[in-house]
Amino acid sequence: MKVTLNNSNRLALLRTILKKQKIHGLFVPRTDEYQGEYVPACAERLKWLSGFSGSWGTALVSQNKAALIVDGRYTIQANKEAPDYQLLSPDNKSLANFLSIAFKKNSTLGFDAWTTSIAEAKRLLHIVEMAGLKLTATTGNLVDRVWQDRPIAPKEAIYAHPLAMAGEPTSEKLKRLASEIKKQECGAAILADPHSVAWALNIRGSDISHTPIALLRAILHANGKATVFAEKARFSAEALQSFGQHVRFVSPDQLKQTLVDLVNSKSAILLDANACPEAIRLLIVKSKGQIKLAQDPCILPRAQKNSVEQKGARDAQLRDGAALSNFLHWLSTTAPLGTLTEIAAQNELHKFRLATGKLKDLSFGSISASGPNAALPHYHATGKTGRTLRNNEIYLIDSGGQYADGTTDVTRTVIVGQASATMKHHNTLVLKGMIAVSMARFPAGTTGVQIDALARNALWQHGLDFDHGTGHGVGSYLSVHEGPARISKAGHVALEPGMILSNEPGFYLKGKYGIRIENLLLVKKPEKSKGGDRLMLSFETLTYAPIDKGLIDESLMTRAEIQWLDAYHADVWSKLQSRVMPSARTWLEAACRPLTKHV
Amino acid sequence: MKVTLNNSNRLALLRTILKKQKIHGLFVPRTDEYQGEYVPACAERLKWLSGFSGSWGTALVSQNKAALIVDGRYTIQANKEAPDYQLLSPDNKSLANFLSIAFKKNSTLGFDAWTTSIAEAKRLLHIVEMAGLKLTATTGNLVDRVWQDRPIAPKEAIYAHPLAMAGEPTSEKLKRLASEIKKQECGAAILADPHSVAWALNIRGSDISHTPIALLRAILHANGKATVFAEKARFSAEALQSFGQHVRFVSPDQLKQTLVDLVNSKSAILLDANACPEAIRLLIVKSKGQIKLAQDPCILPRAQKNSVEQKGARDAQLRDGAALSNFLHWLSTTAPLGTLTEIAAQNELHKFRLATGKLKDLSFGSISASGPNAALPHYHATGKTGRTLRNNEIYLIDSGGQYADGTTDVTRTVIVGQASATMKHHNTLVLKGMIAVSMARFPAGTTGVQIDALARNALWQHGLDFDHGTGHGVGSYLSVHEGPARISKAGHVALEPGMILSNEPGFYLKGKYGIRIENLLLVKKPEKSKGGDRLMLSFETLTYAPIDKGLIDESLMTRAEIQWLDAYHADVWSKLQSRVMPSARTWLEAACRPLTKHV
Repeated sequence: MKVTLNNSNRLALLRTILKKQKIHGLFVPRTDEYQGEYVPACAERLKWLSGFSGSWGTALVSQNKAALIVDGRYTIQANKEAPDYQLLSPDNKSLANFLSIAFKKNSTLGFDAWTTSIAEAKRLLHIVEMAGLKLTATTGNLVDRVWQDRPIAPKEAIYAHPLAMAGEPTSEKLKRLASEIKKQECGAAILADPHSVAWALNIRGSDISHTPIALLRAILHANGKATVFAEKARFSAEALQSFGQHVRFVSPDQLKQTLVDLVNSKSAILLDANACPEAIRLLIVKSKGQIKLAQDPCILPRAQKNSVEQKGARDAQLRDGAALSNFLHWLSTTAPLGTLTEIAAQNELHKFRLATGKLKDLSFGSISASGPNAALPHYHATGKTGRTLRNNEIYLIDSGGQYADGTTDVTRTVIVGQASATMKHHNTLVLKGMIAVSMARFPAGTTGVQIDALARNALWQHGLDFDHGTGHGVGSYLSVHEGPARISKAGHVALEPGMILSNEPGFYLKGKYGIRIENLLLVKKPEKSKGGDRLMLSFETLTYAPIDKGLIDESLMTRAEIQWLDAYHADVWSKLQSRVMPSARTWLEAACRPLTKHV
Repeated sequence: MKVTLNNSNRLALLRTILKKQKIHGLFVPRTDEYQGEYVPACAERLKWLSGFSGSWGTALVSQNKAALIVDGRYTIQANKEAPDYQLLSPDNKSLANFLSIAFKKNSTLGFDAWTTSIAEAKRLLHIVEMAGLKLTATTGNLVDRVWQDRPIAPKEAIYAHPLAMAGEPTSEKLKRLASEIKKQECGAAILADPHSVAWALNIRGSDISHTPIALLRAILHANGKATVFAEKARFSAEALQSFGQHVRFVSPDQLKQTLVDLVNSKSAILLDANACPEAIRLLIVKSKGQIKLAQDPCILPRAQKNSVEQKGARDAQLRDGAALSNFLHWLSTTAPLGTLTEIAAQNELHKFRLATGKLKDLSFGSISASGPNAALPHYHATGKTGRTLRNNEIYLIDSGGQYADGTTDVTRTVIVGQASATMKHHNTLVLKGMIAVSMARFPAGTTGVQIDALARNALWQHGLDFDHGTGHGVGSYLSVHEGPARISKAGHVALEPGMILSNEPGFYLKGKYGIRIENLLLVKKPEKSKGGDRLMLSFETLTYAPIDKGLIDESLMTRAEIQWLDAYHADVWSKLQSRVMPSARTWLEAACRPLTKHV
């Protein structure tokens, strides 16, 4: 029980500080100063304090209570990793209830305004005030004060994302963004999201895992120039050259003074409430600056990939699809031996990706899941091996790579040995949904919530569903999870040409198996079709790798669906036959043969 | 040009009043004091002033300008009926542009706070202020001052909607509503919408066409009692008896004093911003009352029909479906003669409905449209005859009846003579969408926007679409257009068991023909199906009448779709064979025979 003791000691240390500062409770979120999905080791404050290692959660610590707000994905894990913490669900009501029980009226709760977005701070303030308590931003991060061996913040080298990959020079991007900032009647926009800085300035870095970004912020000015808060020495010569005269460097220590200067220039400052730390808003308010809350102006242009990025995506996906196909071939001979483990399998896939010679990183931690583990959509194999793949069981592999020309994300579900009729039934329903989205045509303005219904309809017909979204946006050598559009019940942003989205319906049978089939799709320009009277958008499939026919019940498929799958497999074969290892070719050809029955 | 001259004179009279009152411009909406779709003759102010007779629009009149805000449905009609008015589209920007051109800064615009909802007044205020102008509520309605021969307001008798139809006594409804009012922390709710009053008190009336309501308001109190603003003498003995001690009558003249008394009772008053006149809000504000804006508490329970209402709906639909089938049989022999007109056809259908002996009213003005007229979704035949039905053309009939046990709304599209391949192609795509919605199964929480995509998918695949929603809620012997749920791109309310919704995808080929197939659907309770692992809602089809097989291209349909249509037709035959006229039976049997091809 060493871990628990350690965490208790840490909690005791933190409580001493809280007492001194007359703060009765402290919020400790997993998010860092950059609000991202992946955080550097120095920002793993929640894990250090509580032991909880999930990607999302918030602790709330008082002198005699410790609670942990986590979502449904993480309740089992949080109970195991942070046994001393009471678990709360993430809705406002659960927190409100806890506050009213755990704190006396007029108690003061603290939060770090740097690790809390404007939107989240507003939400917390509302709940805290409704409970008759006070909320105050702490001076500095109080966890950092007691975390003695805290790792130092990463300041890795920053390199250029060359024009051959980015497709649009920094100067052009800054000009486009400036025009948007002027349209919003602002003089400048704070780029609080490092992904936006990376996109706008055509730079990449390696401060965190899986996403090639440097953790830094910038200010975009309405005159088309940018101020970057980072030491110039971190940037490669190529990056500096690409900036020309458009970028000014300011030390991160000078952020506050720079904001004051900006306020003095009298024009409004654009902040994105979801991306920007509350601390920046407070600094501007303190200097009596004018704030306009609006969406980060990079979000939409970043999502709409230009033709160079689209070409890069196609190349990266073929390369990645060949690596995955090599793996699936290897798996088809290795898995039936009955000794292959989940970890060994994901490592082997990693090797095939590395063998492309172009892999920069995995785009997220692989989900290599056999049998009942596949029923957990967010499973990650643990220990030295994870579970061993067994015969007549399903194996699910969800993984992706970061390449300089594109980010990939693909899931295949295969049967080791023979599939049961029920497995085929479920897999075919998932496949029907995946094909319905792939084949979709839709008018301008259509949003993800509309497309989402097409992915679920076949499952719904049979009283089944899956409890995650159908698809998320994917960056161009950036984050594998990118806004603003998504295909889900909450997808209220129109799908625009150039966006890349995943298409990954699934089905999960607790304790038995899980199924997910995922391709990436590129939203095509609107086109008129024969017999059609209006322009329709549609998807170009980017991902090429065989879909396991051993898990298909053809009798459930329509003619159009079978035609789609046969055409897809014909494409996989024609695009990958010269890219896979010679030893995998015979297997690939068979895997890509058309389905036998054509109704 | 008598009409135009008249309207000019009316405009001149109105301008004289405006000048006297120092009002530089006046909004004259089509909506009346009750914000409904149908208004009594005395409230047709927009039509009286401008000549425009559409169901939605707003005039804006200044000393030297006259504009008319109408939507796309009505531009042609407005140009014809109100040639002196400049047309504006209904978006905020068009109005803002017009204001900045038509008025000097600081000009005062007037509006009648009784014919303007709280939400609309807020919207107008925002636009007017952004343009540097002022908005003021006029004292009384200024059009009424100059409208000398204005009809008197209807005060028709009010009768009971008996328990055998309503299924829940008034006292129970008032108790349920009181609990909702308390949940909203209010002491009372203003029922500004006469449909809500009719539902809550189990009363019906005949103040307007097509919807059996009395134009009156009420206050619901948190103690389960109601105050109704109407003379007691208008109510039938049966109605009065059903009220027991729960309802108090106050003369409409006493509304203001009653509100003041309510304010003095110190508790908050619930107002629905979309239903409640701004005038009521202003009265409460003036007395320093506390307002809570929230949805009219009747809206959701009214939409979720109880088992008695559901049984009534089934009965009414079968009765109505038999009348429609009699008509379609008559049409099949009469239309080919080449002399039948649109007006004669809709009159004949009316006769068949009257012959049921139970028709109270049509639920809306029938759309009887032949050939190119059917391409106008909101067409109404005009003149003495309308167009004549011609051979080898499409005929579309969209109509409905008000029966004491239910409200109907049904559309059938038939071919007179022989359909072209293109007609069959288009009609089959519409039918596929209509079937997809009919067959839908979906989890709790699913909203109309998700179901809407299923209705459009087949058309989308072929580059086609339709520019109206797929479905609207339908009342129980109330309005044929009822909130809160709808199946459309804007349908963000969950579909709940007991709701009745229309399912009416369409396709319109300008200048040639239009297609729409409409059934009403009842949302069923969630059920588990064989092989399913969760509860799913689904629809019960309420409307029974043959769908024209002469307009179907079976090769476009899946096996499941053909099975659905054959089963539907088998149901039509079994349910209606004893209900239609003997002479129509042979025709009905043939119309309900299964499709020939079964893939």
